[in-house]
Amino acid sequence: MSDKKLPCSSAHMRELADRLPTPFYLYDERGILDAVRDMKVAFAWAPGFRNYFAVKACPNPTILSLLAKEGFGADCSSLPELLLAKSSGITGEMIMFTSNDTPDEEFSEAVRLGAIVNLDDITHIEALERSVEKLPELICFRYNPGPKRTGNAIIGNPVEAKYGVTDDQIVECYRIMKEKGCKRFGLHTMVASNELDGSYIVETARMLFSLCVRIQREAGVRIEFIDMGGGIGIPYRPDQDAMDLKAVSTGMRALYEQIVVPAGLDPLNIVFECGRVVTGPYGYLVSKVRHVTRKYKDYVGLDACMADLMRPALYGAYHHISVVGKEADPFDHVYDVTGSLCENNDKFAIDRKLPLIERNDILVLHDAGAHGYAMGFNYNAKLRPAEYLLKSDGSVVMIRRAQTYDDYVETLRFSGAPVEV
Amino acid sequence: MSDKKLPCSSAHMRELADRLPTPFYLYDERGILDAVRDMKVAFAWAPGFRNYFAVKACPNPTILSLLAKEGFGADCSSLPELLLAKSSGITGEMIMFTSNDTPDEEFSEAVRLGAIVNLDDITHIEALERSVEKLPELICFRYNPGPKRTGNAIIGNPVEAKYGVTDDQIVECYRIMKEKGCKRFGLHTMVASNELDGSYIVETARMLFSLCVRIQREAGVRIEFIDMGGGIGIPYRPDQDAMDLKAVSTGMRALYEQIVVPAGLDPLNIVFECGRVVTGPYGYLVSKVRHVTRKYKDYVGLDACMADLMRPALYGAYHHISVVGKEADPFDHVYDVTGSLCENNDKFAIDRKLPLIERNDILVLHDAGAHGYAMGFNYNAKLRPAEYLLKSDGSVVMIRRAQTYDDYVETLRFSGAPVEV
Repeated sequence: MSDKKLPCSSAHMRELADRLPTPFYLYDERGILDAVRDMKVAFAWAPGFRNYFAVKACPNPTILSLLAKEGFGADCSSLPELLLAKSSGITGEMIMFTSNDTPDEEFSEAVRLGAIVNLDDITHIEALERSVEKLPELICFRYNPGPKRTGNAIIGNPVEAKYGVTDDQIVECYRIMKEKGCKRFGLHTMVASNELDGSYIVETARMLFSLCVRIQREAGVRIEFIDMGGGIGIPYRPDQDAMDLKAVSTGMRALYEQIVVPAGLDPLNIVFECGRVVTGPYGYLVSKVRHVTRKYKDYVGLDACMADLMRPALYGAYHHISVVGKEADPFDHVYDVTGSLCENNDKFAIDRKLPLIERNDILVLHDAGAHGYAMGFNYNAKLRPAEYLLKSDGSVVMIRRAQTYDDYVETLRFSGAPVEV
Repeated sequence: MSDKKLPCSSAHMRELADRLPTPFYLYDERGILDAVRDMKVAFAWAPGFRNYFAVKACPNPTILSLLAKEGFGADCSSLPELLLAKSSGITGEMIMFTSNDTPDEEFSEAVRLGAIVNLDDITHIEALERSVEKLPELICFRYNPGPKRTGNAIIGNPVEAKYGVTDDQIVECYRIMKEKGCKRFGLHTMVASNELDGSYIVETARMLFSLCVRIQREAGVRIEFIDMGGGIGIPYRPDQDAMDLKAVSTGMRALYEQIVVPAGLDPLNIVFECGRVVTGPYGYLVSKVRHVTRKYKDYVGLDACMADLMRPALYGAYHHISVVGKEADPFDHVYDVTGSLCENNDKFAIDRKLPLIERNDILVLHDAGAHGYAMGFNYNAKLRPAEYLLKSDGSVVMIRRAQTYDDYVETLRFSGAPVEV
């Protein structure tokens, strides 16, 4: 069971929603810091433990800086994400550059920033060489186990995945880079997304530990760190349990003792690239009810829509909904909770049991702190919402303003008439 | 069969792709104008025929102005779309405001602009009244036939749809508005999306014609126009045929003579809200190959990604791909064509037969002119591409510039530190 409480009192949330234009995102600093500490405590034994926060999950510099103060790095997948990390004070090996189908200019910038370059493909060696004057000392490869591993339900079958170096290529990759003068090496994989079964993560560690031994044996290359990727899920549904990070850590430690230490590879640093588990449960989309109406079904129409939070429409994903101030009311009504996009799949919930809802009620969508704001769009010319941070001291600060119509049409403004090219 | 030709010579396309930063959108003015004329010719018999172009399909003012010059109006679904239409010179009853879950301030602006207000819900009568000083003279309702009609495959079952006034409510809606002093009335429905079977459109006309007769009989309200909505599909696959608009028109005319004329309701104006069929086939996403690589499958990595064109990743939609300059080569290779987003579903094509592809080849994705640019996002901090118009005289003009990193971080800039609220 996971608790779906608000990050503040109902009265405070109501007051915020009345004062600030809805919809908006609210992040809970205390929750995020607790998640960071839970992760650090669970993996205190692990050499060089670090989480590179997946910027794509929550690309807000205030959040990134908060995490950086706690020792987290940034996992970046594009040039603008590298620039976001840099502007958040994250540079050098605190940045993991895990991209795919990478353009040359992004390799250049990553190397210039001193980021760890994680190559997705054997042909990217050539791309990296033509992109930089000198290869970096430290290089990492993304491993795709292919038929040796089944993916989890969300990320799909590794054999069908566009990512990573194949099992046949992986040792050769390190051999080549050693010959080219690289001195330090990392090994990365990412075979899960939003996984709640900790044993799957432990099995990924087994796979990478064993592969380190094989790489050492076959290429004479000692891996300095394994990057377990992300994929630690969160309990979107109240009846789901969070992953037990301590149990995962214990399982990984046993395998470390069993595989890494006897092979003489200790210390082998262990890092992750988690995003969702860090900010996901601590971001809330706060919305006001515009209309309650009966058609062939009963509908609650919010001022938020799928442009603000895509996951329900895109994946049919469940997001828990709290009706502020009605926590104790009987859940004796059934509604489809919709947004105003001209897309019939713009529904935050279908046939959801909720208390009686009236116009101007405040609905809070939970677990919107990762891949929430980040995945929004401007379809139907919908403007993007603001983001606020509820600080540990109870104060609230704006960390991103709402988009305006002027922002929306910014790229249409250039010297009056269309420019001939 | 539908032809999947480029809008210009291969040499011209190659030259454009070498000169302009890829990826970019290219729209074919001649194709769009031909589509407009085809539609006008097909429905020349229909009283007051007009198409309100669905702004959401291609929200670019240059395109909207081009269509306005041809007598098309704008179908808007949000306040920013109303403003876009206005800035494109489209005002008054040339705007159809078809929204759902509508905020009060959008009703106000629509009425202020003199747009036709199309109410989605019986409770929106009250919302409209509290939003404006005086109700407009002309009012329209969106009808949802519910169990009386099955939806097409894409839009889904009307009973499950969040849109429109139910069959039980529709007559009452007109009765109420007549009592409140409205003088002119329209009737709207939208029960199809991307439909290629013309008979489905004809059946929709039958439904609306008959409903006009019923509304006249039961509420004493004479409907001035029917709005057939959009939903006319396009042949994304080369083996599909475009809808025969002339046949649809002929079918509708027969029903008009059979139902509308004998009821004394002639002239009954007929309008549509088509977007896709107008610009869809005449927009191209032009992209360059970054990488060709073999993993467990063979991959072509483009510099475009799902942030530029969502339909393949979102719906598994087929978009035809031309490899510029290799039109005559044998299609003897099988590739997954991917973008660089950190989402494994970021694939424009899976197991697609194509000619041998090399780095720097130019790939053109067809049928991207509707719901293409419009549905893009900034996930992974990907920046939005530019849009160009290939004019009928062969010249090319920029009609939207590419987004920059500065644009991307614009909403993060406010007086330095986070603002306390």
